[in-house]
Amino acid sequence: MSFKELMKVLGLGAVAFVLGVEWLNWLTRRLRDSRGPLKEVLFFPSPQVCVEHLFTRHTHFPCACPLPHGVETSFSRLLRHLLSARLSLDLCVFSFSHMELSRAILLLHKRGVVVRVVTDRDYMTITGSQIGALRKAGICVRHEMSKAVHMHHKFALVDGRKLITGSLNWTLTAVQSNKENIMVTEEPELVRPYQQEFQKLWEANDPANHKPQTTNGQQNR
Amino acid sequence: MSFKELMKVLGLGAVAFVLGVEWLNWLTRRLRDSRGPLKEVLFFPSPQVCVEHLFTRHTHFPCACPLPHGVETSFSRLLRHLLSARLSLDLCVFSFSHMELSRAILLLHKRGVVVRVVTDRDYMTITGSQIGALRKAGICVRHEMSKAVHMHHKFALVDGRKLITGSLNWTLTAVQSNKENIMVTEEPELVRPYQQEFQKLWEANDPANHKPQTTNGQQNR
Repeated sequence: MSFKELMKVLGLGAVAFVLGVEWLNWLTRRLRDSRGPLKEVLFFPSPQVCVEHLFTRHTHFPCACPLPHGVETSFSRLLRHLLSARLSLDLCVFSFSHMELSRAILLLHKRGVVVRVVTDRDYMTITGSQIGALRKAGICVRHEMSKAVHMHHKFALVDGRKLITGSLNWTLTAVQSNKENIMVTEEPELVRPYQQEFQKLWEANDPANHKPQTTNGQQNR
Repeated sequence: MSFKELMKVLGLGAVAFVLGVEWLNWLTRRLRDSRGPLKEVLFFPSPQVCVEHLFTRHTHFPCACPLPHGVETSFSRLLRHLLSARLSLDLCVFSFSHMELSRAILLLHKRGVVVRVVTDRDYMTITGSQIGALRKAGICVRHEMSKAVHMHHKFALVDGRKLITGSLNWTLTAVQSNKENIMVTEEPELVRPYQQEFQKLWEANDPANHKPQTTNGQQNR
């Protein structure tokens, strides 16, 4: 076979390969679309397993910890959904003290994902709260301004199109002990109202619109 | 026009009327189906309005209370969804002290709707809890058996096909003060897992499968 013929065969092969990959992509998309937008329900408590590979993106579970490796749980699914954020994460959570969830949020912030957090005024200062660590890292956190009201939501919006919502507070007890639920969906009819609610709370709790307290400066943190 | 002719015209008119109504029904069903299963999101706090007409089924708001009448709110929508139960209501709620929600559950029970409740062991005995009133009326209530675990769900299944779930506990503070959310959906992919979870909890907390406590008899209530 001459060099010219070889090049022709290689060229045609490359084109066939690219077309094949594109066709497979198209087929996968069609199959996914026919099932409708993502809908997933997770229940807790979730068994303790190693989730190190989700943070480090290693595929061969190099972690030497004594926890089971390579096991998918409700908690690892939740982590995967959170870590899938590429542009933004809007989080509205009553109580946040879970170390690994905090690590995930800090990692997203480090990757350049725009993270916004709205939380409860009282619960953000309890022992073990991760809100201080988020603020220290430069993540913008706002809290419910009214003293008489609890910001009791527990939802997150990933890239403005994936909603994670349920009964689960971001605490170790909730994840490992309690009977809890979470729903993950990309159904636009469900995602849109939560987006609007987040924006409403974000603006309503802007410290710039509230007078600083006379007793301490916490209100403007 | 003879009597025979008159009867013919009336008969044809009746047939045309019935066919017209059936066609309108079909059209409405088609339009509803094209929008997919019910998906509704409700946010709280909900303003205080009169909901008496939802219990008494009076259409002209005969109530003389000083609250606004004829206004639809998140709470009245929640009540409507609950009171739409015809066959069964499965309720899984952490804290239940709201008087009007209790009234709604008691009314459903009185109407012959099969009501089952799973609740939290500690929170069912707090001041104002409505769990005692439900049990007194003959409603079957089971509670989380483990002392170390909270049954933190807040979801309900109406007739096994409508799911109501979110952050909202069934308390006055949650409804009237807190920032809370509820999602109401008939999407089978979302309803089914909650049905299975309810059944799992119902069976796991069957007092017949647990030894009675030595300190008191609460475990078998």
